[in-house]
Amino acid sequence: MSISLAQQVMRRCDELAGITDERGCITRTFHSPAMQRANKLVGRWMRDAGLSVREDAAFNLLGRLESSRRGAKTFLLGSHLDTVRNAGKYDGPLGVLLAVACVEKLRASGVTLPFHLEIAGFSDEEGVRYQTTYLGSRALVGTLTGKDLATVTEKGIEKARRKAGEFFGYAEAHIEQGPVLEARNRGVGVVTAIAGQSRIRVEWEGRAGHAGTTPMNLRQDALCAAAELTLAARACGVIATVGQMTVKPGASNVIPAHVTMSLDVRHQSDARRVAAVRKLQAQAKAIAKRCSVKLTWTIVQETNSVNCDPVLTNLLRKAAGKHEREVLTLPSGAGHDAAAISVMCPVSMLFIRCKDGLSHHPDESVKTADVAKAVAVMSDFLVALKERHA
Amino acid sequence: MSISLAQQVMRRCDELAGITDERGCITRTFHSPAMQRANKLVGRWMRDAGLSVREDAAFNLLGRLESSRRGAKTFLLGSHLDTVRNAGKYDGPLGVLLAVACVEKLRASGVTLPFHLEIAGFSDEEGVRYQTTYLGSRALVGTLTGKDLATVTEKGIEKARRKAGEFFGYAEAHIEQGPVLEARNRGVGVVTAIAGQSRIRVEWEGRAGHAGTTPMNLRQDALCAAAELTLAARACGVIATVGQMTVKPGASNVIPAHVTMSLDVRHQSDARRVAAVRKLQAQAKAIAKRCSVKLTWTIVQETNSVNCDPVLTNLLRKAAGKHEREVLTLPSGAGHDAAAISVMCPVSMLFIRCKDGLSHHPDESVKTADVAKAVAVMSDFLVALKERHA
Repeated sequence: MSISLAQQVMRRCDELAGITDERGCITRTFHSPAMQRANKLVGRWMRDAGLSVREDAAFNLLGRLESSRRGAKTFLLGSHLDTVRNAGKYDGPLGVLLAVACVEKLRASGVTLPFHLEIAGFSDEEGVRYQTTYLGSRALVGTLTGKDLATVTEKGIEKARRKAGEFFGYAEAHIEQGPVLEARNRGVGVVTAIAGQSRIRVEWEGRAGHAGTTPMNLRQDALCAAAELTLAARACGVIATVGQMTVKPGASNVIPAHVTMSLDVRHQSDARRVAAVRKLQAQAKAIAKRCSVKLTWTIVQETNSVNCDPVLTNLLRKAAGKHEREVLTLPSGAGHDAAAISVMCPVSMLFIRCKDGLSHHPDESVKTADVAKAVAVMSDFLVALKERHA
Repeated sequence: MSISLAQQVMRRCDELAGITDERGCITRTFHSPAMQRANKLVGRWMRDAGLSVREDAAFNLLGRLESSRRGAKTFLLGSHLDTVRNAGKYDGPLGVLLAVACVEKLRASGVTLPFHLEIAGFSDEEGVRYQTTYLGSRALVGTLTGKDLATVTEKGIEKARRKAGEFFGYAEAHIEQGPVLEARNRGVGVVTAIAGQSRIRVEWEGRAGHAGTTPMNLRQDALCAAAELTLAARACGVIATVGQMTVKPGASNVIPAHVTMSLDVRHQSDARRVAAVRKLQAQAKAIAKRCSVKLTWTIVQETNSVNCDPVLTNLLRKAAGKHEREVLTLPSGAGHDAAAISVMCPVSMLFIRCKDGLSHHPDESVKTADVAKAVAVMSDFLVALKERHA
């Protein structure tokens, strides 16, 4: 049963992958022609599952299953339908289509819920169109800023805002986008928190010099300083990455005068992340002094971590426990709509194993068996939620 | 006397700087219109100094002072008149104009030489026009290759070749292009050798991954590997420089999958250079294994060192000793026409201090007092050479 639903989810991911703004690859951005077609198609599938469907003012696709219980609140399931450029098939859509499959599974089992259920296909998580993130989910929770509204051409998206207290919880299924489940041989995992992130731009200004005629002790080599910090980041005890490095003048026979590098530091504990960044900055200052180069340290972005709700997460873990011999819990190093939704209600997340940990790439791949497991876990989770509410 | 000659050299360097292929900066490349005008101007100065002037088939400017002694051989002084793009005033021309000043100084002192003296203004040391080096001096000694001749549009440059045994020695004055003389507070220094060079292209192929979701122990980070080798190069005991580094895909939130870096290793001892390169390659292999990345190590160029002739160098050192309280000897980390000439006859070199060790830059600067010292040292050297020949 779950297998055939999972096969349907996989076929739908394939079909959705054909809806794109760029021929030959998968690209769907906020309110683009492809996104409008994607909402139409997924809306049809939602209706087939018995949901009443609408698109809100921020172009989020919303499918709703009303409970007959008086005064019932709403539980939200969802993920996003937009993609990066040249994306894979699963990052986002899998979570939406999996939620639709859960509704079908519950309906087939004759389960009725004592709360309203709503499935959101968010209109913008990747932020490709306007270099903003979570436009859809932030419109829903009412955290769009004046700057967002000034940036976005579409008018009135703030009207998508929902009432405070309308939702009592949120659950999102998403591919892991990392290699942990694969390395530990698990089909699904339960997310404990969405890591906070510090993004820093580090600039080193040394002095150019002839690579043949400048003795090592008279150099002010910006690249050596950058190399030292790169290795310090690797050893700093939290997740830290140098992904960009630009070396000037960039000739093989000239000592680098100027290096700009990115530094990305993440951890589910904000205290540990902030302490790591502080320590790296102190190390950078010491490196600058030792290498006689000038250091410029600019914090580009800081986002605090979001903890998943202990009650929801525990229910999810128990549901997963029926289908995995031992449930792996792990933090999410990437951001998700769940982080935006967390300001409105408790959130929880289920990760699905993806091949090689790959995402944001056409080779993104998930196993049908893992999708089947995720459908079973999320359905059991909803049943457990029903029992809690009974 | 030397001061006024030095002032004349400085004025001539200024005047020559006005002769350029690119407005607003100094650029003169092999056989370009500016080089033709430069040869005309310097040729006039050579004639004023009593030299007979011609341009050879490789567009080298040659000024000759014949000795009346029968069977006399020729001593060659020189440097190059071409420049890099957006060059300074002194790299090359200073050595040529200083040689002309020496002839004027000897003539004024009534010194006649028991050997022919020839001053060469070489037509191509920097190799800007055809990405070849030493076209002028190699044409003179007969080491142009078939590939050179196929590359160069101008026909017949190989006819500039001179007879074996015609020259008994060569001396070149050149700005240091490094900071050693300045750091040690010397106006001039005597060169012991022109360092050999190994140029290596190092490629690291790891694996891209999400900077937030890939645990540190599951990474194959090409940039961390490159950083380790950069620091190993700094510590390798000889002159070693990483001047270029290209990081792909180059996004702040993606683990670097591919890094290409240059490695430039130099030393006056070929054995020490080769040993250092071999050790760095072994270290690179160990780094690749530890970081789970693939290493590609490509030797792009290898040039052996050229020793300056002990006899000529000793004469130069004695001459310098009359004008410096203690003569500094040093290797040249940069290549010079002297290296090309060394296959034909013994060579020697005198370095002149330049501000901040800067070269290949419009801010290149030398002091008139240092030029005066160099004129005095080179003239005394020629007198010492005369006494040896008497």
